[in-house]
Amino acid sequence: MTVVGGGVVGLSIAWQAATTGRSVAVVDAEPGRGSSWAAAGMLAPAGEAHFGEDPLARLNVAAAARWPAFARDLEEASDSSVGYRADGTLLVAVDHADRQAVDDLLRYQLELGLDASRLTASECRHLEPLLTPGVSGGAEFRHDHQVDNRAVVRALLDACRAAGVVFVSDRVRGIVTRRGRIERVDLEGGGFRATVAVVLAAGAWSGTIAGVPSPSVPPVRPVRGLTLRLRAEGTTGTLARTVRGAVHGRHCYLVPRNDGSLVVGATSEEKGFDLSVPVGATAVLLADARELFPALDEYALVELATGLRPGSPDNAPIVGRASPEGLVVATGHYRNGFLLAPVTADAVVALLDGAPDVEAFRPFTPERFGPERAGPTPAEAGAR
Amino acid sequence: MTVVGGGVVGLSIAWQAATTGRSVAVVDAEPGRGSSWAAAGMLAPAGEAHFGEDPLARLNVAAAARWPAFARDLEEASDSSVGYRADGTLLVAVDHADRQAVDDLLRYQLELGLDASRLTASECRHLEPLLTPGVSGGAEFRHDHQVDNRAVVRALLDACRAAGVVFVSDRVRGIVTRRGRIERVDLEGGGFRATVAVVLAAGAWSGTIAGVPSPSVPPVRPVRGLTLRLRAEGTTGTLARTVRGAVHGRHCYLVPRNDGSLVVGATSEEKGFDLSVPVGATAVLLADARELFPALDEYALVELATGLRPGSPDNAPIVGRASPEGLVVATGHYRNGFLLAPVTADAVVALLDGAPDVEAFRPFTPERFGPERAGPTPAEAGAR
Repeated sequence: MTVVGGGVVGLSIAWQAATTGRSVAVVDAEPGRGSSWAAAGMLAPAGEAHFGEDPLARLNVAAAARWPAFARDLEEASDSSVGYRADGTLLVAVDHADRQAVDDLLRYQLELGLDASRLTASECRHLEPLLTPGVSGGAEFRHDHQVDNRAVVRALLDACRAAGVVFVSDRVRGIVTRRGRIERVDLEGGGFRATVAVVLAAGAWSGTIAGVPSPSVPPVRPVRGLTLRLRAEGTTGTLARTVRGAVHGRHCYLVPRNDGSLVVGATSEEKGFDLSVPVGATAVLLADARELFPALDEYALVELATGLRPGSPDNAPIVGRASPEGLVVATGHYRNGFLLAPVTADAVVALLDGAPDVEAFRPFTPERFGPERAGPTPAEAGAR
Repeated sequence: MTVVGGGVVGLSIAWQAATTGRSVAVVDAEPGRGSSWAAAGMLAPAGEAHFGEDPLARLNVAAAARWPAFARDLEEASDSSVGYRADGTLLVAVDHADRQAVDDLLRYQLELGLDASRLTASECRHLEPLLTPGVSGGAEFRHDHQVDNRAVVRALLDACRAAGVVFVSDRVRGIVTRRGRIERVDLEGGGFRATVAVVLAAGAWSGTIAGVPSPSVPPVRPVRGLTLRLRAEGTTGTLARTVRGAVHGRHCYLVPRNDGSLVVGATSEEKGFDLSVPVGATAVLLADARELFPALDEYALVELATGLRPGSPDNAPIVGRASPEGLVVATGHYRNGFLLAPVTADAVVALLDGAPDVEAFRPFTPERFGPERAGPTPAEAGAR
């Protein structure tokens, strides 16, 4: 089988498929270096939930529950740490409207049966003494965990290689069928690879592969995310857990790593296939993060990273069989690629094994968008 | 002869010395990649003047006048453009105190006989329509020009090679003398280079070379500068000239390049030999630059660069002969490395030719700090 795309989703599928005896190739020009590399690794089943996405919230909760065992297996297979941390997330508000937004999200977490509680301003600062005195209150979401996204990617690459996965450093140009079945994938470099099963896990580029019949083209769009990597300089303390802030109507997050570094990130923008680092968004993110956490000034900026997450029309993943026979789609994971990768890998392996469907993903099949849809324009696809 | 340090000053000296028939070697682990690479290339004879530095201002004015011919010769020798632009600099103020600061600097420019004039807010915006309506007024400094610092560095490297300069990719550990004369320089890589003349042009590290007798050790300290490189995205216009802003008591500058890109930079910090990118200074710089020039949000952040400029106790350069015989010091150029490089090269070549001294640099010899001084501590030096 051939996995198109070596992000966290494609690599998780490749690893799980290879350990159950399949011969697996991953085609990616730079495995692990797309939006999975730019991510922060938050595992937030409802922390980023949009209201009205209940089946998705249930999937997310199941996905979070799957992580501890997945992390354990991956650490064993790769002989490395993936930085899984279960210390929860502190959501803090600055102004009155921010407090309202935090309360709304808290109510939603409680409705989903998650372990969360409302906190006063002084309770927030008791948990995280370096937060600004300007915090007006917050909530603790004990189900929102984190992994070190880059450690996960490295571990998946190692685990895949150990399980015999072949890496093809190229891009898939198209899928070629013969009598309604997949025969091979053609590569941009000019070669091809004979294969009867293809998993389409190319993230934001999943809609740009030629030879996929129109109803099977996943309707994904690129959604740009921005993260900054910071290194502690000097002796100031860090945060004990992930802090998400609602700051004058905007959102940002600060994720502390085990090595004392910090990943700071912001909400998304939709600007097509544009991986540049936007000046305005960077300035606003830095200003908001400093307002929440003044000790940020003791850090050094090490890296600015952008990634293009695959958003679907309903912001839920697109996972399931599609035509031609042998094609399985696994994309549209939007902001939850890391959270959903383990359950997606389980589902795809079950489908490859012949399961008629996978219950948790029944609301998220490719067919739900109907046969009449348009993929990305050729101009967008060409911007790859 | 051996030039220690391949920044803009060392390279200019090496080129000029080689074209007058000398056999020249430049020792630098990464020629051109230090603070000369991080610089913005402003040639501002009085734009950054500190009051009470009159002999320095006169030197700066002479240095600015030397640039057009130097640029022409360098472009001819390297067959490349160095981006010399004589379109002047617009200094703008935001609040009342900023306006006062701009007026003070204007008066100083006029006292020096420079071509400058006071502008109303609307005159500022007439010159640069994309400036914020929040500008309270400003001044035009027609003597403040610019070069593309990286184009200059590349051109100097090419011109040096064409003139036969040898590049030694290493660092000088120390100067070894014999009977009061220079015999060789020892390299960190373990080798050495026999030489009777040494030009010490190692910027902020000029005080860390072993074997220089204590009174000759230039008393330089590292002063960190920060520049951001931006690329225009989309169709927004750019600036027609360099804009320097006084923004609520802080200073920043925006330098437009011929290719539509922009270099944005800020005032200095003294933090020892620390080249990391400070989060706080970056955030403040971005916020100030956006306040002056809201169209900045249409740009992409391409690079954040820091450099360590060599500051001397009086912030003036240190250029002249020193003991042992054969040693010439050329450092301490602080913020004006690009502005002063051509006249410094002329002066050093004259000294090497046996001139008793060079009038323009008479106030700036190494001896002016007296025999009783301390160099950097070993701990600072070790941070290299």
